[in-house]
Amino acid sequence: MSIAVIYGSTRENGNTEALTEQVIDGLSVEKIHLREFQILPIKDERHSANGFQEVFDDYNNVIETVMKHDILIFSTPIYWYSMSGTMKLFIDRWSQTLRDKNHPNFRSELGKKKIYVVAVGGDRPSIKGLPMIQQFQYICDYFGMSFEGYIIGKASKPGEIQMDTKAITCALQMKETLRKHVNP
Amino acid sequence: MSIAVIYGSTRENGNTEALTEQVIDGLSVEKIHLREFQILPIKDERHSANGFQEVFDDYNNVIETVMKHDILIFSTPIYWYSMSGTMKLFIDRWSQTLRDKNHPNFRSELGKKKIYVVAVGGDRPSIKGLPMIQQFQYICDYFGMSFEGYIIGKASKPGEIQMDTKAITCALQMKETLRKHVNP
Amino acid sequence: MSIAVIYGSTRENGNTEALTEQVIDGLSVEKIHLREFQILPIKDERHSANGFQEVFDDYNNVIETVMKHDILIFSTPIYWYSMSGTMKLFIDRWSQTLRDKNHPNFRSELGKKKIYVVAVGGDRPSIKGLPMIQQFQYICDYFGMSFEGYIIGKASKPGEIQMDTKAITCALQMKETLRKHVNP
Amino acid sequence: MSIAVIYGSTRENGNTEALTEQVIDGLSVEKIHLREFQILPIKDERHSANGFQEVFDDYNNVIETVMKHDILIFSTPIYWYSMSGTMKLFIDRWSQTLRDKNHPNFRSELGKKKIYVVAVGGDRPSIKGLPMIQQFQYICDYFGMSFEGYIIGKASKPGEIQMDTKAITCALQMKETLRKHVNP
Repeated sequence: MSIAVIYGSTRENGNTEALTEQVIDGLSVEKIHLREFQILPIKDERHSANGFQEVFDDYNNVIETVMKHDILIFSTPIYWYSMSGTMKLFIDRWSQTLRDKNHPNFRSELGKKKIYVVAVGGDRPSIKGLPMIQQFQYICDYFGMSFEGYIIGKASKPGEIQMDTKAITCALQMKETLRKHVNP
Repeated sequence: MSIAVIYGSTRENGNTEALTEQVIDGLSVEKIHLREFQILPIKDERHSANGFQEVFDDYNNVIETVMKHDILIFSTPIYWYSMSGTMKLFIDRWSQTLRDKNHPNFRSELGKKKIYVVAVGGDRPSIKGLPMIQQFQYICDYFGMSFEGYIIGKASKPGEIQMDTKAITCALQMKETLRKHVNP
Repeated sequence: MSIAVIYGSTRENGNTEALTEQVIDGLSVEKIHLREFQILPIKDERHSANGFQEVFDDYNNVIETVMKHDILIFSTPIYWYSMSGTMKLFIDRWSQTLRDKNHPNFRSELGKKKIYVVAVGGDRPSIKGLPMIQQFQYICDYFGMSFEGYIIGKASKPGEIQMDTKAITCALQMKETLRKHVNP
Repeated sequence: MSIAVIYGSTRENGNTEALTEQVIDGLSVEKIHLREFQILPIKDERHSANGFQEVFDDYNNVIETVMKHDILIFSTPIYWYSMSGTMKLFIDRWSQTLRDKNHPNFRSELGKKKIYVVAVGGDRPSIKGLPMIQQFQYICDYFGMSFEGYIIGKASKPGEIQMDTKAITCALQMKETLRKHVNP
């Protein structure tokens, strides 16, 4: 099994990335920093006469990279109690891929994947981040993906995540689980 | 009291707009269609040496328009169980405005506003849309905004919202409430 | 189709009952006031050598009455952000019925029913009552019951529910839906 | 600081108790097994002419024991996606204590306490237990209690909780936190 990490952070080396680093330390993963790609907002053309029109940005390349992997780790800062807009733009586009003849089995292929979420927020994230976790669950349910686990860390200032010993402990735990998936 | 409607829809005249139309029928409102503006993803520079850098897009104009009004109606389709990426990009940028010297009272000014949410989704939205409602509540709590009410409609195909008699009834109800706010 | 209303209120003629009265006005329903019955807390004996032991209280009679009907309306005040303890005691006992040889098809029989929830709370119930709604959904999902709708009213003092025009409007709406189920 | 553990389990030595045992191992705590006491359902008499009437059961003794402690650990199995009816009966009665002249400072006294929740469920509890966590948060908010942390374990059969290494790890983590509170 191979792993892709999909990062929704908008700055480098922030707390979310640092916590995720603990999760993937020593594992072979493909890192996808969404901020490095141009991904336009979806234009809902499900019901247009001609359906969705081709969009000329980086989305198709990104989704193709994602689809190569068996385990997806969504690593996102919690902005306003949900995933970053950067990550939401990416996920919104799945509605187009669901109707893309180049991805005829998108739903079932995605449905084979295992999902993990690593999120960091500053405002009582272990409570106020829970609606976001429920949303990830609904997304997983839609595709039949297996939502295997999540970590919610608390941090605001650079480096602060290292003081969230609970999150760090959970990260090590998640790493062990991933290691077993990769080398059963 | 004056009203702004902030639309997160990505197509014209969709179900979300149609439901919102029922809410504002006969009222004087300023309509802000976010899809018509360029709003870039926030770059989190809260902790950078130089802080947030000026962004050259339409966000500042949009937020200034928003701030003129007392009542804000967030009108969004439910994409993947939360607000559209288009709307999320807009709200994410509030983190920058909170630190913008041109908006020294942004938090307290926003805290005076009354908030309504009108949302439409296709996949059991009256249940699966609830985490999004909780997120709006957390956003309101952060600023001290008063979250006055929400409607969640169910529709997928064009025009289908008209068959959701419960949502239509709630829309008329909300219109009456708004009318009293505007003409007490 | 026939309707049972299962009341979790602990006082007579309170706001929850008053709101429910609007829902069932003119309809033929069987009313089950849980407070009038002795229903003991479940004793979890799923894993005991001898399994669940017979409990001598009113539960079996109540569940038999419930099972005769096609539509169940759970009418509960919101106590501490969830259903009343009186109602929870009743639902907890379902775990025993699931293993009761007198109810060999309990899960599938329950799975045929349509569920409505009418709830009234005093502390921002349209937000703080949502976790309870999610829990009802999970219960419905477990059995395969169809969760058809819910109303959350706001009231504390006697009679106050009549001022929640939104809830009253929704109650009338729900009544129309029920009427169509009963006389299609 | 002293610790009380309030158990909502209905059988002895179940998974919830076993997980809680890991949390309190080596700490001095007062254990309150609610199943050993008679606690009647609240009768809502907030609005009766004579107010709440004295109830002759064990509740008053239990709440007095609880109030002696600074840290409360609510240890409950997840029954139907929320706390056990046994625990709910106890918490529902707080509405009476809030109006009990023998507890004139109930709200503010409770507001000084630190709260932890340890819960175990069998049906995807890390997702389906989240509404219950949100409800505990709302309860804490009402009183001003500090909701310090929660663990959700997954287990059904006796002893199964020991296989939930994530929950066990979190329990050890919580124990360390408690130890620091008790011996700062």
